[in-house]
Amino acid sequence: MPSKTFLNRISKLQSFFNMWKTDGCLIENPLDLFYLTGLQLSVGILAVLPGSEKLFVDGRYIEFAKKHSPVPVELLSKEAVSAFLRRVRTLVFDSFSTTVLREEQLKKLYAGVLMGVPQPLKELRVVKDAAELKAMKKSASVVWKGFEHIRRSLKAGVTEKELALSFEIFCRKHGAEKLSFDPIIAFGKNTAYPHYRAGNVKLKKGDIVLIDIGVVVERYHSDMTRTVFFGKPDPRLILLDTVVKKAHGAALALCKSGTKIGDIDKAARQVVQKAGLQELILHSLGHGIGLETHEFPRLKYQGDDHDVILREGMVITIEPGLYLPGVGGIRYEDTIAITAKGYTNFYV
Amino acid sequence: MPSKTFLNRISKLQSFFNMWKTDGCLIENPLDLFYLTGLQLSVGILAVLPGSEKLFVDGRYIEFAKKHSPVPVELLSKEAVSAFLRRVRTLVFDSFSTTVLREEQLKKLYAGVLMGVPQPLKELRVVKDAAELKAMKKSASVVWKGFEHIRRSLKAGVTEKELALSFEIFCRKHGAEKLSFDPIIAFGKNTAYPHYRAGNVKLKKGDIVLIDIGVVVERYHSDMTRTVFFGKPDPRLILLDTVVKKAHGAALALCKSGTKIGDIDKAARQVVQKAGLQELILHSLGHGIGLETHEFPRLKYQGDDHDVILREGMVITIEPGLYLPGVGGIRYEDTIAITAKGYTNFYV
Repeated sequence: MPSKTFLNRISKLQSFFNMWKTDGCLIENPLDLFYLTGLQLSVGILAVLPGSEKLFVDGRYIEFAKKHSPVPVELLSKEAVSAFLRRVRTLVFDSFSTTVLREEQLKKLYAGVLMGVPQPLKELRVVKDAAELKAMKKSASVVWKGFEHIRRSLKAGVTEKELALSFEIFCRKHGAEKLSFDPIIAFGKNTAYPHYRAGNVKLKKGDIVLIDIGVVVERYHSDMTRTVFFGKPDPRLILLDTVVKKAHGAALALCKSGTKIGDIDKAARQVVQKAGLQELILHSLGHGIGLETHEFPRLKYQGDDHDVILREGMVITIEPGLYLPGVGGIRYEDTIAITAKGYTNFYV
Repeated sequence: MPSKTFLNRISKLQSFFNMWKTDGCLIENPLDLFYLTGLQLSVGILAVLPGSEKLFVDGRYIEFAKKHSPVPVELLSKEAVSAFLRRVRTLVFDSFSTTVLREEQLKKLYAGVLMGVPQPLKELRVVKDAAELKAMKKSASVVWKGFEHIRRSLKAGVTEKELALSFEIFCRKHGAEKLSFDPIIAFGKNTAYPHYRAGNVKLKKGDIVLIDIGVVVERYHSDMTRTVFFGKPDPRLILLDTVVKKAHGAALALCKSGTKIGDIDKAARQVVQKAGLQELILHSLGHGIGLETHEFPRLKYQGDDHDVILREGMVITIEPGLYLPGVGGIRYEDTIAITAKGYTNFYV
C-alpha cells in the first residue's frame, strides 16, 4: 500500500487527541504498528504527536524500517524515546494490550502522564477501506474453497484431525498465509462444545459435523461456520438447526448502516426464546474481524459494545449457535461487510 | 498426563507464597492454565490458595472442565470469584501477561491487595520434567526432518516462500500440530535481517540460505537454525561462518548445571570480539523454550536474567549470529537440555 494510506491513518489517529485531551499517543501493539506503518514488527514504538511521528525499532529491524517506513525512524533506546517525548505532557497508551509490567517500564522512560485508553485504534480499524475489503474477500474465498474441500472429504471413517490437516494443506496451497485459528471440526456429540478442536473421532452415518474455519490472506482473517448432516441426525438437532437458521436470518435482516449492534443480538435471541431454547445459547452473536479474528465490536445485547452503531465498511460475523449437552450443537457463521444500503455476505 | 503431575505443580506454586508474602495467586494466562491443569482454555481463572484451588471457566468450557480438571471447577462469574476470594488479603497476579485493563477489572472483583509478579510460574516452567523433555525431543525430531526436507529441496529457481510452504506441509504430515513461528527462510542478502520472513526471491548459485524453523508437537515448541551455502559464497561470509561456529562452540562448552547464563553469552562474545566483529551482533545468544518458543530466561550478559544459574532440566537455545548489512548473515541455533553433567543437544 502507498505511504499515503498510512499517513492518512496516522492523521485520523491524531484527530482523536482533542477528545482524549492528550498531547500524543504511543503505539506498541504489533498489529497497530502494521496498520499505521505497513511494517511487520514484533517490537517497536510508534510515537504519534500532533503533526509529528517517530518510529523506534531495534537492531533487527532498523535497516528494513529505514527503507520502508512512511514516518521517520530511529534506533530504539530508552534515551532516544525519552528525548523525543521530553516536552510532551500527556500520552495515551493502549490499556487493552499493554501489560502491567510494560506500563511500569514506560513510566521509567516517560516522565509525563500516561493515560490508558483501551484499543485506541479500534474506531479506525473497525471501518475497512477498499484495499482491506478486497483482502478480506480474498481470505473468505480461500476459506470457502477449503470448506468445499472438507465437504468433499466427508466419508465414514475419516477423523476430525485428518480433515483439519487436509483443510490446512489445501488452504496453504491455495494462497492462505496461515490459518486464522485452529480449525474446529467436530463430529456428533463433540459439536455440543462450542470451542472443541479436532480429535481422533471417526465419522459415522447419522453424525452431524460442525466446521468452524478461517485463514489469513494478506494479513486479513476470515471466519466461517457450517453445520452439515452426515446421514439422518437426531430429530432434536433438526429442530435446533431450524431455529438457528431462523435466528441467523432475523439477525441478517437488521444488518445495515445505522443499526444498533445490541438490537441484532436481541433479534436473534427473540427467535430462540420463542422456541423456548434460550438456555442453549452459550456465546454472543458475533464479532468484528480484520487483522485479528476477534476484533471490536462484540455483538451482544449487553456489555461494552451493545450500543455501537453499524457503519459502512464495518466487517462482522453473524454466528448464532445452540448447544444441547450430550447430543450436539448447531452453528452457522457468515462474515458480512456493511454497505450503504445493507450488507455484502462473503459466503453466499 | 495424570492428575498427580498437575497437583504437584500447583503445590510447588503454593511453596512460593511465603517468599512472595502472599495469601494466594491468580492464574489467567492460558499457557499457565494448561501447565497447571492440563486443560486448553482460552479464558479462565485458576485461584490458588494455600491448600485449596478452584478453576473458574465460562459456559463454553464448563462441561469439559468438570470432566477433566484436576481441581474443583465452578462456572465463571464475578460473584463466584469474589465469593471464593472474600477472605483472602493479598493475591499475586502475573504482571507480565496481565494487561492494564484486566488489572482494573480484577480490582473490581477482588477487594484485597493485588501484587504484580512477572511470570509467577517461570521458575516452575523453566525446569522440564521427563514427560516434557520427551515431547520436546519429539518436536525437535520433527523439525530436524523438516530441515532435511528443505535441504533436499534447495534447487536454483525455488523461492523462499515455496520452501516455507513445503516445509510446513511436510511437518504437518509428520506429526507437527502447527509451526511454532513463521519460518525464516532467507536467500543471499536477505539473511542480513535476523527476523526476515520468506519472500518471493529465487535461489541462485552463490547464495547463502538461512533457515530458522520450529514446530509444535504435544504443545511443546522446537526452534533451530542452520545456514547453508548454495555454491561458493562471498568470502566475507565464510569468515563470518567460521567465527559464528567458534562462538557457538565456546558457548556450548560452558553449558552445564551451575553455570551463570551471562557467562555463556560473554564467552560467545569474546570469540566475536577477538575477530573484531562485535558490531555485527544484533541479538542475544538464546532463550528458554518450552510451551512457548521464547521463554524465560534470556541468554545475555546484561539485563534481567544474566545471573540465572543453569539447572538440570532447563531447555535453552544457543544461537549466535553475525549480520553484515547488504551482504548476508550467519546463524546457528541448537536447542539443548541441561543434564547433571553437561547437556543433551537435540540437533546432533
